[in-house]
Amino acid sequence: MRVAVIIGSLSDLPKIEPGIKILKDFEVKTDVRVLSAHRTSKALEEFMEEVNSNGTEVVIAAAGMAAALPGVVAAQTVLPVIGVPISGANLEGLDALLSIVQMPSGIPVATVAINGSKNASYLALQIIANKHECIKEKLILERKRNSEEVLKANLELMSKY
Amino acid sequence: MRVAVIIGSLSDLPKIEPGIKILKDFEVKTDVRVLSAHRTSKALEEFMEEVNSNGTEVVIAAAGMAAALPGVVAAQTVLPVIGVPISGANLEGLDALLSIVQMPSGIPVATVAINGSKNASYLALQIIANKHECIKEKLILERKRNSEEVLKANLELMSKY
Amino acid sequence: MRVAVIIGSLSDLPKIEPGIKILKDFEVKTDVRVLSAHRTSKALEEFMEEVNSNGTEVVIAAAGMAAALPGVVAAQTVLPVIGVPISGANLEGLDALLSIVQMPSGIPVATVAINGSKNASYLALQIIANKHECIKEKLILERKRNSEEVLKANLELMSKY
Amino acid sequence: MRVAVIIGSLSDLPKIEPGIKILKDFEVKTDVRVLSAHRTSKALEEFMEEVNSNGTEVVIAAAGMAAALPGVVAAQTVLPVIGVPISGANLEGLDALLSIVQMPSGIPVATVAINGSKNASYLALQIIANKHECIKEKLILERKRNSEEVLKANLELMSKY
Amino acid sequence: MRVAVIIGSLSDLPKIEPGIKILKDFEVKTDVRVLSAHRTSKALEEFMEEVNSNGTEVVIAAAGMAAALPGVVAAQTVLPVIGVPISGANLEGLDALLSIVQMPSGIPVATVAINGSKNASYLALQIIANKHECIKEKLILERKRNSEEVLKANLELMSKY
Amino acid sequence: MRVAVIIGSLSDLPKIEPGIKILKDFEVKTDVRVLSAHRTSKALEEFMEEVNSNGTEVVIAAAGMAAALPGVVAAQTVLPVIGVPISGANLEGLDALLSIVQMPSGIPVATVAINGSKNASYLALQIIANKHECIKEKLILERKRNSEEVLKANLELMSKY
Amino acid sequence: MRVAVIIGSLSDLPKIEPGIKILKDFEVKTDVRVLSAHRTSKALEEFMEEVNSNGTEVVIAAAGMAAALPGVVAAQTVLPVIGVPISGANLEGLDALLSIVQMPSGIPVATVAINGSKNASYLALQIIANKHECIKEKLILERKRNSEEVLKANLELMSKY
Amino acid sequence: MRVAVIIGSLSDLPKIEPGIKILKDFEVKTDVRVLSAHRTSKALEEFMEEVNSNGTEVVIAAAGMAAALPGVVAAQTVLPVIGVPISGANLEGLDALLSIVQMPSGIPVATVAINGSKNASYLALQIIANKHECIKEKLILERKRNSEEVLKANLELMSKY
Repeated sequence: MRVAVIIGSLSDLPKIEPGIKILKDFEVKTDVRVLSAHRTSKALEEFMEEVNSNGTEVVIAAAGMAAALPGVVAAQTVLPVIGVPISGANLEGLDALLSIVQMPSGIPVATVAINGSKNASYLALQIIANKHECIKEKLILERKRNSEEVLKANLELMSKY
Repeated sequence: MRVAVIIGSLSDLPKIEPGIKILKDFEVKTDVRVLSAHRTSKALEEFMEEVNSNGTEVVIAAAGMAAALPGVVAAQTVLPVIGVPISGANLEGLDALLSIVQMPSGIPVATVAINGSKNASYLALQIIANKHECIKEKLILERKRNSEEVLKANLELMSKY
Repeated sequence: MRVAVIIGSLSDLPKIEPGIKILKDFEVKTDVRVLSAHRTSKALEEFMEEVNSNGTEVVIAAAGMAAALPGVVAAQTVLPVIGVPISGANLEGLDALLSIVQMPSGIPVATVAINGSKNASYLALQIIANKHECIKEKLILERKRNSEEVLKANLELMSKY
Repeated sequence: MRVAVIIGSLSDLPKIEPGIKILKDFEVKTDVRVLSAHRTSKALEEFMEEVNSNGTEVVIAAAGMAAALPGVVAAQTVLPVIGVPISGANLEGLDALLSIVQMPSGIPVATVAINGSKNASYLALQIIANKHECIKEKLILERKRNSEEVLKANLELMSKY
Repeated sequence: MRVAVIIGSLSDLPKIEPGIKILKDFEVKTDVRVLSAHRTSKALEEFMEEVNSNGTEVVIAAAGMAAALPGVVAAQTVLPVIGVPISGANLEGLDALLSIVQMPSGIPVATVAINGSKNASYLALQIIANKHECIKEKLILERKRNSEEVLKANLELMSKY
Repeated sequence: MRVAVIIGSLSDLPKIEPGIKILKDFEVKTDVRVLSAHRTSKALEEFMEEVNSNGTEVVIAAAGMAAALPGVVAAQTVLPVIGVPISGANLEGLDALLSIVQMPSGIPVATVAINGSKNASYLALQIIANKHECIKEKLILERKRNSEEVLKANLELMSKY
Repeated sequence: MRVAVIIGSLSDLPKIEPGIKILKDFEVKTDVRVLSAHRTSKALEEFMEEVNSNGTEVVIAAAGMAAALPGVVAAQTVLPVIGVPISGANLEGLDALLSIVQMPSGIPVATVAINGSKNASYLALQIIANKHECIKEKLILERKRNSEEVLKANLELMSKY
Repeated sequence: MRVAVIIGSLSDLPKIEPGIKILKDFEVKTDVRVLSAHRTSKALEEFMEEVNSNGTEVVIAAAGMAAALPGVVAAQTVLPVIGVPISGANLEGLDALLSIVQMPSGIPVATVAINGSKNASYLALQIIANKHECIKEKLILERKRNSEEVLKANLELMSKY
């Protein structure tokens, strides 16, 4: 089980790290790269060739502003590509969201919420789980844990009000 | 290979049909349902139980306006769920887009473009291809055909200008 | 007189507390729960069954981002449901507002302003007052107090300018 | 059982008529008025005095553009006021939506979707039902009918795919 | 020469004070009031009657969120009314801007920039100047001063680069 | 009594004509020009010199897209300048609205609704009325007529419902 | 003198033709291609190599939705790249505008208005004119013609009003 | 080689300085001015006459809010004009972006990202490079450096994950 995570700029790393942590917790081999669609297109191409032949099952690509990275990555593979819009200094990530989600027909990018790196990883795991039953079980467990967390908070709240 | 396609309202069908056609072309068994998160939650629950046990590999959910359907579907499965925002009478689908893509942590929805049913299906196929090598080959062929179509158009254009 | 207040996440509590305080001031029994439409749909369903049979007269549901909670709650009751869009890290609550207000025909959610928990409670009280005359009187008094507060501020301002 | 429906301009009537029909179907006495917050404030005031003393239980106010009507109506009563943003020639009703939903603290307006006159009426009925049990039963029946309609459409769809 | 300045909430005062200062500098009698269209409509009506008979030449009305105040003021006078959208906690004043500028035909509000209290006052002075030549001269002088300020800054900048 | 009306493009004329008609009805001398801030800045400058010396009391400037015209006009006079944002092929006039209303401090533009040429003229008349009592009377009459029109529509509506 | 015009999809051609006509009128050699950043990245790369060595002076790139084309083109050349956002079925071209204009530091795209193919060509000509004096003269003439056209329209308008 | 940089307000200087630094690094003579389209139109005109005759090759104009400056500058020259939208206190620079990019046909402004002063300068250099081969080489070198910087960051990242 292997996932590639590509960020468009090193400054996006803190926003994507919560997602990387989830992949590690699920013991999925995770290759992390900072590679720009615009500044390092050759290196990106080389990495995508690796990705296409080294058993990677899903690619996560995160970028801000005119976020071309996820689409450019998606154009170089038929693996599922998950796009994470990163919020920048202005427009609160709306620019990145539209740049990623409004892909033309033929090259889809599976877009998650602005700065939604955690959900990008969960989505990657759900995709992997189609082939790897063990991941599915862990995901169901995780869902249960999340649910229990809410229910525990609910009990505390009920005791308060 | 099996995909479930759920639309929130019968009026969304014409916007999702181009995507259904792609799934048929790829000879993927496709279950199509109109089931509302709000109006038929019980029937939706029952269908999701089926989905979770009948070998379905991906779910596509399309809805407009306050489009809760994809998220509610995603909450009832750990299968990958693809959300298609449908444009309605006002706001050009921006309401559906934000209602689908801005999912809270833990329950991801893989969002595609507004009315992007074709890409929803291609994404579903890319996810399935992780397990079914044959689909991968067909997808690569399809990409090639798409590419050739553009190149042919380009040749015509070049002869014109 | 009984109102149910459901928040989608414990982190929304500080934004909804000013509204809870108003309900307490009006001596309305207030059940507060944190229950997610996505993470704890079963517990939400159970709570809604309670709500539908324990004399609750209005439900207030507050959520952020792709805020499905108010709509999902509204689908499980014919009690009036008031939705409070909560602003999150990005998009200033516009995502939650559209996710809550743009409900399809048949399942209305009475939407108030972004983070407008106070008005959610006043609206709940106005609904209750239809049956309970005493609340109506208190609301008229409260309006008068609010009005007098503005007029007092006005007098101070007039003495300054 | 009595509901008042106020529209800001005669041109809004076709967009509000589907809602009026629902109130008639539920045999609720419905007073319909065209009264502008800006052009006929005195007549509006007089009508609101009537509304406050003739047993009206809910007020529905619909307006477009800088839609002050619902808020001005809400300021003259402690009855629940439901606001319907009407889409105009530009901005697709976003101006009316924000003008209605973003009410300051103390004077709530229960806002429904852009051009959502049907949901305005259903919401009014749900509020009335708190006092009039018979309406509640009819609403539950209506929900059931709506649900069955979706399920019937679903069966047809299933036979097609 | 007399101008009325009405704010919808005392919390808007700091955002309107720069404009009040300009009116004072031009020695225009300035009546400042905090009067809400929703909470103190009677007192607002009384004040508007005063305004209509005490020689006031322009009214400035500032409000945030669903900013009905400027339009309601405009409906009670044929004096020119200037509206100042005030930014609130969310949506950056876009709600107030649309609530003020999108007035229906017949009752105009002269809208200035979000938090643009200075320009509201300059506009009021330009309107007054139509009748009072002396103000016109002062405005031309002020424009010249503003222009010179920019030119001085320009000289400093030129010496730097 | 004299008003200047400047449009940025001949294609804007149909959207501004309803406003011109109102000025004619009030027997205000109306100079209409098509002069672009960008394409005919010299001719605009010459016209503004005329405007500043021929007794013009108000200038109305209408433009679409990056609507610089009203601001550029305002920079060349201390007469009140009313800006009318014209909707174009895209963005529904939001570009023109922001380009006109968000003027920096010192040079105000009195902005009215998108395509709000009627209100631009009413506002111009209200400004003129400050000096010319007769206009004020006509405006009050016009308001009364508008009010009566709504009340007549209301009577018809009441007879229907 | 040579300009390359690249469109992302053949369906964009009608929206870019008015600009191509201008380049032809100025007798600039114009290579027109339909090449997608996503579907034909290799062919695009090859064409950009040609562009970089055949004396092309400016590249115009037009695309809609998640419009990556202009940025991807800009990444493959240090020639000035002009981006034209094309409006699609939804969101009125706002998605394309943000996808093109919000480029990260280092790889600029000179963005013009939504569907602004004429201005893209004028901008290209202005860039070329820096080296080719003859173009500059023609541009000044063209500006004069445009100006005279407005002035002629103005004369007609003046005779009408 | 000469570039003119015009800012609409001294407060915009910090946001434009990173771009000025780049021009200096490339040893391009850079004239920096603060000149407002609205407040100092005469001085702007005089400076543009200089610009048109002193060998300036590109003009960069930066402004916020209703940012008329770049368009007004563009109207006074056939040199390429680059517009930089500056974010202000509200609306995150969207007002400036639309005011600059949505120019009508005939007077283009090459718009870059909100606060994108660096890209404005790179774009200016790319335009200059058309005539001055040496700049082209430096730009290619700079691109390489940028690329290497990303690749170095990538190596560090790879060692970490």
